[in-house]
Amino acid sequence: MLNSRALAAHRDTTLPGATMETKIAEVTVLHNAVIVTMDSENRVFRNGGIVVVKDRIQGIDQSAKILENFGAIADHIIDLHGQIILPGFINTHVHTSQQLGRGIADDVDLVTWLHDRIWPYESNMTEADSYLSTLLCGIELIHSGVTCFAEAGGQHVSGMARAVELLGMRACLAESIMDCGQGLPESWAKRTADDCIKSQKDLYKEYNNSADGRIRIWLGIRQIMNSTDDLLLATRDAAKDLCTGIHMHVAEIPYENQLVKDTREVDHGTVTYLEKIGFLQKNLLAAHTVWVNDAEISFLSKAGVKVSHCPAAAMRMLGFAPVKEMITAGICVSLGTDGAPSNNRMSIVDEMYLASLINKGREVFANGTTDPTALPAEMVLKMATIDGAKSVMWDNEIGSLEMGKKADLIIIDPSSWSMVPIHDCISSLVYCMRSENITCVMCNGQWIMKGRKILTMDEADIISQAKHASSALLNRAGIKIRPRMNVL
Amino acid sequence: MLNSRALAAHRDTTLPGATMETKIAEVTVLHNAVIVTMDSENRVFRNGGIVVVKDRIQGIDQSAKILENFGAIADHIIDLHGQIILPGFINTHVHTSQQLGRGIADDVDLVTWLHDRIWPYESNMTEADSYLSTLLCGIELIHSGVTCFAEAGGQHVSGMARAVELLGMRACLAESIMDCGQGLPESWAKRTADDCIKSQKDLYKEYNNSADGRIRIWLGIRQIMNSTDDLLLATRDAAKDLCTGIHMHVAEIPYENQLVKDTREVDHGTVTYLEKIGFLQKNLLAAHTVWVNDAEISFLSKAGVKVSHCPAAAMRMLGFAPVKEMITAGICVSLGTDGAPSNNRMSIVDEMYLASLINKGREVFANGTTDPTALPAEMVLKMATIDGAKSVMWDNEIGSLEMGKKADLIIIDPSSWSMVPIHDCISSLVYCMRSENITCVMCNGQWIMKGRKILTMDEADIISQAKHASSALLNRAGIKIRPRMNVL
Repeated sequence: MLNSRALAAHRDTTLPGATMETKIAEVTVLHNAVIVTMDSENRVFRNGGIVVVKDRIQGIDQSAKILENFGAIADHIIDLHGQIILPGFINTHVHTSQQLGRGIADDVDLVTWLHDRIWPYESNMTEADSYLSTLLCGIELIHSGVTCFAEAGGQHVSGMARAVELLGMRACLAESIMDCGQGLPESWAKRTADDCIKSQKDLYKEYNNSADGRIRIWLGIRQIMNSTDDLLLATRDAAKDLCTGIHMHVAEIPYENQLVKDTREVDHGTVTYLEKIGFLQKNLLAAHTVWVNDAEISFLSKAGVKVSHCPAAAMRMLGFAPVKEMITAGICVSLGTDGAPSNNRMSIVDEMYLASLINKGREVFANGTTDPTALPAEMVLKMATIDGAKSVMWDNEIGSLEMGKKADLIIIDPSSWSMVPIHDCISSLVYCMRSENITCVMCNGQWIMKGRKILTMDEADIISQAKHASSALLNRAGIKIRPRMNVL
Repeated sequence: MLNSRALAAHRDTTLPGATMETKIAEVTVLHNAVIVTMDSENRVFRNGGIVVVKDRIQGIDQSAKILENFGAIADHIIDLHGQIILPGFINTHVHTSQQLGRGIADDVDLVTWLHDRIWPYESNMTEADSYLSTLLCGIELIHSGVTCFAEAGGQHVSGMARAVELLGMRACLAESIMDCGQGLPESWAKRTADDCIKSQKDLYKEYNNSADGRIRIWLGIRQIMNSTDDLLLATRDAAKDLCTGIHMHVAEIPYENQLVKDTREVDHGTVTYLEKIGFLQKNLLAAHTVWVNDAEISFLSKAGVKVSHCPAAAMRMLGFAPVKEMITAGICVSLGTDGAPSNNRMSIVDEMYLASLINKGREVFANGTTDPTALPAEMVLKMATIDGAKSVMWDNEIGSLEMGKKADLIIIDPSSWSMVPIHDCISSLVYCMRSENITCVMCNGQWIMKGRKILTMDEADIISQAKHASSALLNRAGIKIRPRMNVL
């Protein structure tokens, strides 16, 4: 821990006449809280304190020690009696571009979902739509305690980046990338592998490490059915050159595996093929990964591939991923919400609850009965925090509350009807907590929500703009939703 | 619809010098709202109005008509622009006595759950504990839009009844009834079938139709493994005599069916045995009903048995009920939360979301892929409203918004980040809505929540009392929960 003298010296470097920028060097002490650190020792402080200086945690310990060492020099001392501090959640698979399309594809079959709803919607988006969609999604993410997300691959990275900059969040952004496939909208069908790589390298150059380092640019692969081998291999190589990650939907539906078997000469499916061509690497974040066999789990594990488990989308559309088996095999599995038209709630708080429920129930099909001990709360919390950070290759700076890490944290008020009584703090955070229990969110040392109010923008204004943009987009895309009842 | 003249005449019957009681004869008009009636014609008013007089709906139509007919004589005219009115939700399986035990049995196996946690907890409850537990549970139910619930069978019906009276809700209360079984706590083991029936008849006499008719007393059967044939048959006959319902856990786990096969000479399980002894009747509300085969589904359907599907408990502990098959067979299936230690959220709003997800996903195991069209939103909404009312045999008065029915309704504000944009109103209510979108709740013509604040009690006071009672109860019961992490 830095002591107050070192910190004072640090503060002295603030030059006279410095701009507003230097304000972030303020010292904030949060104390008298339960702190769930999610560090490698699983430490929980019953009465803990944290010191935030600029964008980083410069001390974490018992409250008394923190106050003793930093009380005198703190600009803000915040007493969090009865409240809980957690690392900000990390949503490792979210289509922020799809937020304006919530409700456009409920209760329809998969072909209708993709060809008649999602593709027309996405291919008609403007850059301004992407900006608004990411803002609207970000509002929901922040209210749900998310400080960092991995975009699954969307439209108009420039719009997303503008939104993330404003939201104050941290993100790994990726473009939706396809260079082949049946039935693609015209504007997408003409893209080549070279175009795709060039476009992403340009985006990397422009936006990687922007917004005070909160934005990173990843490479996208929408899915194997929309990727030539040229694209896959060039993506793998470009990611290596740029030292960045690849975000790809993997083994989502049985049909995908069947098509890979039929056309790409392997005996199982996508993962087997990706192994064959040397695509499986540590920097691959594989979303969903539902339809994998034991051999494929072993391939993923050996290569150090990370998996984003999206329980709602799995239950609703894809099927039940072998999460317990993947974790047992040593794979880092984190949590994602997927996009609004696949879920429709965009809350890691809800996904924690779902992950626990479905992975207990899924054991019925393996063993004849549920296993209520499967995927215990502490594991689920890990998936939403430190294993999320590992999945986005950012665990050196986020995912746990530790000295020197970035100050990405959330404050939870557990005193309401939704969480009382608390007999098992960790399980209550996973199974009882709702987004309304999350009161404050700090990202990169800045408060982005306080008292359930987002500070970085005018929520009502964004919601109003998003409603209009969304209606206009559906009109352009020719998407019409029939009423389900007898509307008078 | 009554017109204003008829209503004026109705109001003239209020005698001079009448007590406070007569105040409920006020006329309230709600207008300018989307009204989802859930009536047999599936009517939705885009801009509708409702008139509430005393405890009943005396008019429902387009806003303009309602204002024209009742505007002049209304005591309260409430403009609900941009808001949605729904019937109050009906939770058809909830252990209100278990609310103080939230978090006492997370991630443990079923035997530990029952023998080391739930039975010690329940058998150590005082009447005051039941009262507080039901109040605490009621707070969560009201915030989640529930106006009526079916108690699954708990401790101290008198305590529950006092709580329901205060809460202002509607309920079908039942005692937890067992007259045999391995490992029962001492105080329970000595009960006979006769004791059980007598106790329940006394409760019926004292509490049925109490609290302005909001409370009904049902008969309980905890489960077949804790019931002699004498108890089952006497319960069946007593229910017939009293014209009331029976609430029973049915076919929860494979072990239950196996035990019935082994000891009761039938070829499948609980439902087959209950059919054999003539226990299956229209007044039976069978909770969970997970492990049933086609023949048993047919027995349930023919007998007119109602089923309470509890998705969270199913996923977490029991297994996946054949909901689609039961509905296809014509069985009335409704929704329940089960008790806090089986869930832990007690929200029909969440159960609607879960019911949709899990019953789409479950198709994987029947057909190899999920079916995103299974259990569409309009069906899920029916389960939570009118089919809930049928399940508790109260659909002549509740479950839909219709002329002459009781005024049990909720108001939803869909303008926040959790529901915007709305392209498909019905699916948004089922898949996007969260408890925080529910702003007002009326039961029996009385507002019990307005502006998210419960009006019938002091929430903070109950929460504080419940915390203390809960800790004391766990101490008495000798239940200790080990910390999951390294608490410092």
